[in-house]
Amino acid sequence: MPLETKITRTIVTATAEEWAEIANVDVVIVGAGPAGMTAARYLAEKGLRVVVFERRLSFGGGIGGGGMLFHKIVVDEKTVPILEDFRVRYQKRNDLYVVDAAELMAKLAAHAIDAGARIIHGVQVDDVIIRYDPLRVVGVAIQWSAVIMSGLHVDPLFVYSRAVVDATGHDAEVLSVFSRKVPEAELIIPGEKSAYAEEAEKLVVEKTGRVLPGLYVAGMAVAALYNLPRMGPIFAGMLLSGKKIAEIIAEDLRA
Amino acid sequence: MPLETKITRTIVTATAEEWAEIANVDVVIVGAGPAGMTAARYLAEKGLRVVVFERRLSFGGGIGGGGMLFHKIVVDEKTVPILEDFRVRYQKRNDLYVVDAAELMAKLAAHAIDAGARIIHGVQVDDVIIRYDPLRVVGVAIQWSAVIMSGLHVDPLFVYSRAVVDATGHDAEVLSVFSRKVPEAELIIPGEKSAYAEEAEKLVVEKTGRVLPGLYVAGMAVAALYNLPRMGPIFAGMLLSGKKIAEIIAEDLRA
Amino acid sequence: MPLETKITRTIVTATAEEWAEIANVDVVIVGAGPAGMTAARYLAEKGLRVVVFERRLSFGGGIGGGGMLFHKIVVDEKTVPILEDFRVRYQKRNDLYVVDAAELMAKLAAHAIDAGARIIHGVQVDDVIIRYDPLRVVGVAIQWSAVIMSGLHVDPLFVYSRAVVDATGHDAEVLSVFSRKVPEAELIIPGEKSAYAEEAEKLVVEKTGRVLPGLYVAGMAVAALYNLPRMGPIFAGMLLSGKKIAEIIAEDLRA
Amino acid sequence: MPLETKITRTIVTATAEEWAEIANVDVVIVGAGPAGMTAARYLAEKGLRVVVFERRLSFGGGIGGGGMLFHKIVVDEKTVPILEDFRVRYQKRNDLYVVDAAELMAKLAAHAIDAGARIIHGVQVDDVIIRYDPLRVVGVAIQWSAVIMSGLHVDPLFVYSRAVVDATGHDAEVLSVFSRKVPEAELIIPGEKSAYAEEAEKLVVEKTGRVLPGLYVAGMAVAALYNLPRMGPIFAGMLLSGKKIAEIIAEDLRA
Amino acid sequence: MPLETKITRTIVTATAEEWAEIANVDVVIVGAGPAGMTAARYLAEKGLRVVVFERRLSFGGGIGGGGMLFHKIVVDEKTVPILEDFRVRYQKRNDLYVVDAAELMAKLAAHAIDAGARIIHGVQVDDVIIRYDPLRVVGVAIQWSAVIMSGLHVDPLFVYSRAVVDATGHDAEVLSVFSRKVPEAELIIPGEKSAYAEEAEKLVVEKTGRVLPGLYVAGMAVAALYNLPRMGPIFAGMLLSGKKIAEIIAEDLRA
Amino acid sequence: MPLETKITRTIVTATAEEWAEIANVDVVIVGAGPAGMTAARYLAEKGLRVVVFERRLSFGGGIGGGGMLFHKIVVDEKTVPILEDFRVRYQKRNDLYVVDAAELMAKLAAHAIDAGARIIHGVQVDDVIIRYDPLRVVGVAIQWSAVIMSGLHVDPLFVYSRAVVDATGHDAEVLSVFSRKVPEAELIIPGEKSAYAEEAEKLVVEKTGRVLPGLYVAGMAVAALYNLPRMGPIFAGMLLSGKKIAEIIAEDLRA
Amino acid sequence: MPLETKITRTIVTATAEEWAEIANVDVVIVGAGPAGMTAARYLAEKGLRVVVFERRLSFGGGIGGGGMLFHKIVVDEKTVPILEDFRVRYQKRNDLYVVDAAELMAKLAAHAIDAGARIIHGVQVDDVIIRYDPLRVVGVAIQWSAVIMSGLHVDPLFVYSRAVVDATGHDAEVLSVFSRKVPEAELIIPGEKSAYAEEAEKLVVEKTGRVLPGLYVAGMAVAALYNLPRMGPIFAGMLLSGKKIAEIIAEDLRA
Amino acid sequence: MPLETKITRTIVTATAEEWAEIANVDVVIVGAGPAGMTAARYLAEKGLRVVVFERRLSFGGGIGGGGMLFHKIVVDEKTVPILEDFRVRYQKRNDLYVVDAAELMAKLAAHAIDAGARIIHGVQVDDVIIRYDPLRVVGVAIQWSAVIMSGLHVDPLFVYSRAVVDATGHDAEVLSVFSRKVPEAELIIPGEKSAYAEEAEKLVVEKTGRVLPGLYVAGMAVAALYNLPRMGPIFAGMLLSGKKIAEIIAEDLRA
Repeated sequence: MPLETKITRTIVTATAEEWAEIANVDVVIVGAGPAGMTAARYLAEKGLRVVVFERRLSFGGGIGGGGMLFHKIVVDEKTVPILEDFRVRYQKRNDLYVVDAAELMAKLAAHAIDAGARIIHGVQVDDVIIRYDPLRVVGVAIQWSAVIMSGLHVDPLFVYSRAVVDATGHDAEVLSVFSRKVPEAELIIPGEKSAYAEEAEKLVVEKTGRVLPGLYVAGMAVAALYNLPRMGPIFAGMLLSGKKIAEIIAEDLRA
Repeated sequence: MPLETKITRTIVTATAEEWAEIANVDVVIVGAGPAGMTAARYLAEKGLRVVVFERRLSFGGGIGGGGMLFHKIVVDEKTVPILEDFRVRYQKRNDLYVVDAAELMAKLAAHAIDAGARIIHGVQVDDVIIRYDPLRVVGVAIQWSAVIMSGLHVDPLFVYSRAVVDATGHDAEVLSVFSRKVPEAELIIPGEKSAYAEEAEKLVVEKTGRVLPGLYVAGMAVAALYNLPRMGPIFAGMLLSGKKIAEIIAEDLRA
Repeated sequence: MPLETKITRTIVTATAEEWAEIANVDVVIVGAGPAGMTAARYLAEKGLRVVVFERRLSFGGGIGGGGMLFHKIVVDEKTVPILEDFRVRYQKRNDLYVVDAAELMAKLAAHAIDAGARIIHGVQVDDVIIRYDPLRVVGVAIQWSAVIMSGLHVDPLFVYSRAVVDATGHDAEVLSVFSRKVPEAELIIPGEKSAYAEEAEKLVVEKTGRVLPGLYVAGMAVAALYNLPRMGPIFAGMLLSGKKIAEIIAEDLRA
Repeated sequence: MPLETKITRTIVTATAEEWAEIANVDVVIVGAGPAGMTAARYLAEKGLRVVVFERRLSFGGGIGGGGMLFHKIVVDEKTVPILEDFRVRYQKRNDLYVVDAAELMAKLAAHAIDAGARIIHGVQVDDVIIRYDPLRVVGVAIQWSAVIMSGLHVDPLFVYSRAVVDATGHDAEVLSVFSRKVPEAELIIPGEKSAYAEEAEKLVVEKTGRVLPGLYVAGMAVAALYNLPRMGPIFAGMLLSGKKIAEIIAEDLRA
Repeated sequence: MPLETKITRTIVTATAEEWAEIANVDVVIVGAGPAGMTAARYLAEKGLRVVVFERRLSFGGGIGGGGMLFHKIVVDEKTVPILEDFRVRYQKRNDLYVVDAAELMAKLAAHAIDAGARIIHGVQVDDVIIRYDPLRVVGVAIQWSAVIMSGLHVDPLFVYSRAVVDATGHDAEVLSVFSRKVPEAELIIPGEKSAYAEEAEKLVVEKTGRVLPGLYVAGMAVAALYNLPRMGPIFAGMLLSGKKIAEIIAEDLRA
Repeated sequence: MPLETKITRTIVTATAEEWAEIANVDVVIVGAGPAGMTAARYLAEKGLRVVVFERRLSFGGGIGGGGMLFHKIVVDEKTVPILEDFRVRYQKRNDLYVVDAAELMAKLAAHAIDAGARIIHGVQVDDVIIRYDPLRVVGVAIQWSAVIMSGLHVDPLFVYSRAVVDATGHDAEVLSVFSRKVPEAELIIPGEKSAYAEEAEKLVVEKTGRVLPGLYVAGMAVAALYNLPRMGPIFAGMLLSGKKIAEIIAEDLRA
Repeated sequence: MPLETKITRTIVTATAEEWAEIANVDVVIVGAGPAGMTAARYLAEKGLRVVVFERRLSFGGGIGGGGMLFHKIVVDEKTVPILEDFRVRYQKRNDLYVVDAAELMAKLAAHAIDAGARIIHGVQVDDVIIRYDPLRVVGVAIQWSAVIMSGLHVDPLFVYSRAVVDATGHDAEVLSVFSRKVPEAELIIPGEKSAYAEEAEKLVVEKTGRVLPGLYVAGMAVAALYNLPRMGPIFAGMLLSGKKIAEIIAEDLRA
Repeated sequence: MPLETKITRTIVTATAEEWAEIANVDVVIVGAGPAGMTAARYLAEKGLRVVVFERRLSFGGGIGGGGMLFHKIVVDEKTVPILEDFRVRYQKRNDLYVVDAAELMAKLAAHAIDAGARIIHGVQVDDVIIRYDPLRVVGVAIQWSAVIMSGLHVDPLFVYSRAVVDATGHDAEVLSVFSRKVPEAELIIPGEKSAYAEEAEKLVVEKTGRVLPGLYVAGMAVAALYNLPRMGPIFAGMLLSGKKIAEIIAEDLRA
């Protein structure tokens, strides 16, 4: 058998087996940004079957650009234990903790994967799966982001799950599609407010949680849902929110 | 198991099994236009394993637009037996045979498939696989056309085969990529000449054939390769070229 | 007379004769997707004059992309008789019937055409023709889709008909233009709901029918009109909806 | 019969009759700019069957923008008789004759049409028809410009003629496609030179004429073919060139 | 003085003199389509100072594309006198009068200009000038359409006039900008209704007239303003509307 | 040390020092158009720390295009003292003062900078910083405009300030983002009204002022906020508004 | 006369008078970047009639972006006298002189204008005017850059001059159009080389000069013409080149 | 000091300090794909100062898309030690080693950073710095990729280094710019050949090395430089090439 045939068969077969498993998992996390990857790690560590869908062919969300392309981001003291869990180095300056953007991205992903989470790139969640009585979310409809970018009209596939986390950032993409397509849920997504870094950091963690049965929100999507202020290149809230949602879901699924 | 999980698993599994087979076939035909689909039918009928890759999510090549959007095309008398093989209705007018464009498209595809050929949509051939001593073509590198349209950078997969047919029309896409990337083959693609319908119909069939071991050309790609005149909305040459290449390949592979 | 003049005259004349007939038909179906082509076949079989306008130069709607580009689609048991009417092969797996996407596309078109329906490619319906007392639809305004894509400003032509079917899928294009331009009809198009495959399959067939005198809806446009859930790459509902609308219209026109 | 059906049938039938005639004419002029419309008028006046194909839905070429959007153009004394033939008003200033751009456009078209020429809008000539021994041009391949702008792949129709005039301006579109597709003609299109108004006016008329049997050039396309200087918003050369080519062709066709 | 300097000085000076006059006229007509050019001719004939601003570098509005690119349009019997005023040839067929699209465009423009109207190409009206007590329109703000297409940010110039006619067709551009920017006028532009050719032809003429002091509407903009049905490639209403608005304005300005 | 290293270190270090200062200033002016630069000069002259953020890599706002690309603008008599402050030459004509557009742009910038204001190019203000009790604006979130044009997702940096002036012209960009993101402020931006030059000049100066604590408006953004008429290429209002806002802010900050 | 009419007449008349003068000048400088504006000032100071055409609606060329958006640029010691001529402040650091980018842009323009040069924005030079025996450049063809960006086809106007300076930077636009359109000049534009700041600064000044009679080159266009290395955000060479070309031209024109 | 000011100052200062160091390093690696990150780790481990510039805001090059979006890639046995160095898990199948694409991306980056390499995102190398006698490369010119995507014209900054590695993949971007701008180097980049996986894997490692003093090539850029066959989603060659170039450079720099 020529090497080219072997490559194709090996990749298609190994991937298809994994897709058959992915079709039914415990938690779908949408978005491989800071909140999503933090959540993925802590959830996987608890033994749950976790898949993260990321529309780009990379991870990190808004981390890579640092602050206005200056390649550092900052966090506060409360976040230091998470940095240490992920083995991210930091430097203290003006009461803040400075972190290299590239390092944070790499370590969040590496540790989420080592904990057992799957990160699937190039896949966009373009809808949720619902059930009634009570109205709840039981999974997602997915599509190659290449298909969406190309403008071709192709049907999605489905992933059934016990929990879905919107960790897509400012646009709160999952909540938005749900609020538009299921008007009876009366969910409104006002978007984030103008900047107020201190307040934002605090509130985004406080409001992280369950939106309705099966549907959860973490990271900047929390700000979009509750019209909270925006926070800029300080990432404490993102990491703490990711950790908190992991705890809430673990609790709910154990129930 | 919820219906959504069942749908995903069924489709992924059934497709993956087929992809494992496709990774190694007798004939790869590139382009589901008139020449490609005609060739596919006659090759499959002879028991060869045939796959047609078509970058669009449909078939028909240039047939669908008829002549300047007028929805009929014409053929000449010599092509009538092929029309009858495919059960396409025709009407005689001014010594020409008028055919409905939509019917021709549908029937070419339906009969190629019934004969056993596989038509895979949304897949673009973006390179060939080569071997040396002698220089020959032993398959193709393929990519989702959605990926190419999206501008994302993704590696291809490979399909190994005994024969590859360029039936991509005016652009002779397979020959072009080969001539650019394998300069030692000294293949030049001058493109088609200005219009001369009568001459074009005759020459395109005459020149249909093998380009080098493993690489064949049919349909308008023949005109592009040999700088033959263009023919417009008369499709006799296309269908006859498709039938002829099928015979040549069947002969070569039997050898 | 040179062959080139003969080609032009033959095509223009043959097409113009057909356009003169098309200007006044029994049923206009908008969209050559699964529901539209199924309806076309069963309506034509009953002896009605049927024309399908499809904006692309091909047919199949969303079939060609399978499920997320995996080239298979599924149906359920109730749809098997339709598959057999169209001579589409199927394979049973996990209680579902797997069908090759390319084969389904080709056979739907081939059998609709054999039954006597005309499929005209490259034509977009950009408005309806109306009458009052009672408010009703009596045909469509059409335009080359090339003209619309080019942004040129060109007047449409008209096709008068006894029934118009919106089979344009998710966008419900005909209903949408009608609801926007004829506000007194008080038609609202909420769009489809999030996914729930089982429910969707059932409801879309149930709700298939007449919207107001002369205007009918089939396929995914039904989901858009009644805010029904979406169903993904399972096509039972599409085919059953196409068949049902054919029966309803035949009944109405006989009256 | 409803008015809508009547409109469609009347327009399609009247147009199709004309297209059947257009399929075989004496002279095809490509481009409805100043040179093309001047030529059309003088040729039609001599009783020849003339069709002008213009890719836009209007006429005038570069006239409408005047000079850098200032809505006047100028000509010199030698051109006054042509202005008077077309009943265009002028005003003498600094030894030049000033003309309103809009008036010139309208009158060129109105008088060409009154003389019997047909101007067909929205049609692009995308190739020529050739014959050998000797190599000659016997017509053109045409396409809706909407189709070309839309990027759709559709076959052209053909118009057979005794003479083809490239009056497409700076781009010399017909000569360019011919030179690229028929390399054995060894025709090179160097493009126009930098500006030298006086010289340009004189040379463009001098060089107006036959390129090879059946193929003629007039207007700015002459400058493109012979690398003559460009002339800006002085249109004497354009009008004189149009008149001259009419005389040359009339002579050739009488032979 | 070199010829190039002479050309520039002659054109700039002649144009600037005309612009100084255009800065204050009797009637501004926006759009050089069928209604606008008809109105321009009849108004200029009555001795009024008329300027037509057309954003394209040509005239004709939707005429050039005929019906779906078929190059004929139709009118009814009532319009024959206008055709004869403009010396447009016609042919009777199925109770309709068929006219060549190119001829109609050219003759409308030629006769409007001969009557004394100015047509200025490449200029877009992007606002009106207003006064209060009572709220009225006293002119327009204009911009090069090239500037608008280029996305550059440039201030407009002003043209003061006694009457402004919106003859911009389906989009009713002048009315739309006025209704958006002067909310206290409570003008709503619902847009045209679906097609009903007979009714549309009648109503569009009936409703042609003054909208508020200084602001008038003619042609398809009437349909947009009063939600009247659309009419397709039958142009009787357009020409009659243009003639009627000329009579109304002449009357008003005489007062 | 090679010259290339020296260049990079010198520029990065000099700029970083300045950015550290810019992070906390007295006044942020958004937009380097006529109102913004006038304000910047008079504010800086009073000893306040002023930074102007301009998204383009140049200054002048709408001045550079003059009136419809004619390269002059006009002002009235009241503005002459400001022209003289900035040493801009003028010429009296028809009771108006004509100024060269290029000169006005250059001198506004040169004198603002000489007075001590900083103009930072290529930076877009994409949000404000807020505080509550009372609701107030205390700075801005900024981003490279290159980042926004590129579509990349990057976090902003922050600039804290005692006053923020929206001098962004017609779009009132700062007010718009604030009104959208802080709905409890109940700020509505109706946009400017149609043209009425005389009234506009007067009202825009009259309404220039504070919007809420910390947030000010000057120039055409005033017209957008209060639905005032537009004024075209007369710039008296812009310059007077810039001067007035400087006086108001100086007063407020002194308090 | 209403104010709006007065504004239009004043601007059009004042501008047209200036255009009549511009149609024939001593020196045309193409590009209002650092080299062009420096040259303009020193040439105008010597009493020559100078016009600078700049395609954007601003000035500064590459200055505004500083070095990689860091808003400072550097020069060396030899350039200090030019900074002082233009009253640009500087700060010494690591043997280099740091200058604020915004200040340099503003002051270059302000002082060039004060010296008597005209800077016309929004105008692109798209060709030169030539004469023969000997081959020489005697002016330029100009076009609104808005027209070029819009893709409209409009004729240029002409400006006759004794000298033309290409100061368009990296692209050497004037030299490029000349080399393409006047092949007999055998001018080749290889483009700039990779970076070598020290060498580049020296060579660009050395090679600044006359290209052929009437055609001169300054600034980065010198590097493009002679394949010199690139220099990055150090602007000494640009300013010195601008000053040198002014001296050369003054000398040549005096002769 | 408000938190927002603190964030900005901390990030700007920390980053500027690092940029001052980056301005002069031992090795610049261009491209954070598999070869670049592998090289970065092994070089940094040897104590060299290494910076990787990556134009995207992420890392991984072509890894993220797996093979045609199937999210696995394969390597062969020789690569297992590198996988183990980076702690990447693998599974043996058909004699190949299957690796999860996401895991490989994350671990390559994490370990390169832990070894001491800096990865800077959003920065594009758009030129090299050269010296003569002998011709050599001594660093790179860099630009924000956002600036390049936005089309703005901004000068670059410089990074001086002892070695530059082109690890940009198929396009060999650094080699290409160098070969175009320094023609005397006579470097030709023919691009990669058609696919031949086995041969490609072997040759790409063999040819990895120094191109001229200071300039090195690794990964797919090697194939582009030497016209080697392409290899598809098998990454053994990439990782081995990255490791080999690290050894070669370490050797050269020690010399």
